[in-house]
Amino acid sequence: MLNYPAGHRPIRNTASERTTVNYGSRGMSLEERLNLSNEYYMTRQIAVIHKKPTPVQVVKVDYPKRSAARIVEAYYRHASTTDYNGVYKGYYIDFEAKETTNKTRFPLANLPQHQIEHMRQCAQQGGVVFLILSFKVHQIVFLLPFSKLENYLANPNRKSISIHFLEEHAYQCQLGLFPHIDYLKEVDKLLLSSNSERS
Amino acid sequence: MLNYPAGHRPIRNTASERTTVNYGSRGMSLEERLNLSNEYYMTRQIAVIHKKPTPVQVVKVDYPKRSAARIVEAYYRHASTTDYNGVYKGYYIDFEAKETTNKTRFPLANLPQHQIEHMRQCAQQGGVVFLILSFKVHQIVFLLPFSKLENYLANPNRKSISIHFLEEHAYQCQLGLFPHIDYLKEVDKLLLSSNSERS
Repeated sequence: MLNYPAGHRPIRNTASERTTVNYGSRGMSLEERLNLSNEYYMTRQIAVIHKKPTPVQVVKVDYPKRSAARIVEAYYRHASTTDYNGVYKGYYIDFEAKETTNKTRFPLANLPQHQIEHMRQCAQQGGVVFLILSFKVHQIVFLLPFSKLENYLANPNRKSISIHFLEEHAYQCQLGLFPHIDYLKEVDKLLLSSNSERS
Repeated sequence: MLNYPAGHRPIRNTASERTTVNYGSRGMSLEERLNLSNEYYMTRQIAVIHKKPTPVQVVKVDYPKRSAARIVEAYYRHASTTDYNGVYKGYYIDFEAKETTNKTRFPLANLPQHQIEHMRQCAQQGGVVFLILSFKVHQIVFLLPFSKLENYLANPNRKSISIHFLEEHAYQCQLGLFPHIDYLKEVDKLLLSSNSERS
């Protein structure tokens, strides 16, 4: 437990993860791989990035004698923000991570409007904002900068992102063990490209 | 509900808040006042700062037919990070907020070591890191930069911070209604002073 920041172990998807066919990283979920990557970055003092706890609406709590408060009725809530944020080289980092078993397209249905709005607000404040999109079957993980996503979504008919669009407009993350998903390497490229656009 | 980001309404302290004597802001807790301040900053596109959800360790979930998953056994966990973070003018903002009913000193017992460590890591990455300390009885709210806290804690015998130390080394936040606690005004001063120290 000690190495896991509170609330960082995936709780809800464990059962479904176990029953799916495992490709790579010994069947770890995207969340687990990102948490381990963030741990790697943190212990090496490269960045401080955490997954936020899943928000829970607590309805009823029992206080048994001589033991910890026990929540006996609660419900999962929708997060109002993205799942991950933190600081890297002085930059504010903010991203959402999604995985699909689809082979050619990334469905946008599970990217709710309020998360897009949160990303827009963070980008306006000068944050480095992006999506991490994992194609489970191909073992490919893309980092899509929010600016590219926003352009793409300017056409309201778009319900998914093709892998070809991502190959052209997103950064492909290097996968390995140290770290599992080296997305900060792609953030470096993103920073370089946005700095050269500005100058 | 709509205006409240998920998990932002205080759940645990409501009963105790109601029984304490109320000074100012109609008895709102520090957390409520900060959440409203953050909402103010967000709607005016000044900053995007959120309180993180309280981490909960879920043990057992029921899935009733035709209704939402219901958590029937869960426990509160200690947060591994601070409670608040976000982005302001491109800066990564990270802080912890505490309130005391003590009149002369701020006890450090409820500032756990792992939170101090998290703040140190964020500061090393170039984040703007501080404590918000509220003296409930005096209705005074201080913003103590992490660098000052770190110097203070260099002496391991220190178990509390005197209000006199804070008057000298911290910034006093302006209190009002729009926003309730204008801590970003003090962040501006902090940024000015650290930029002039660097040049």
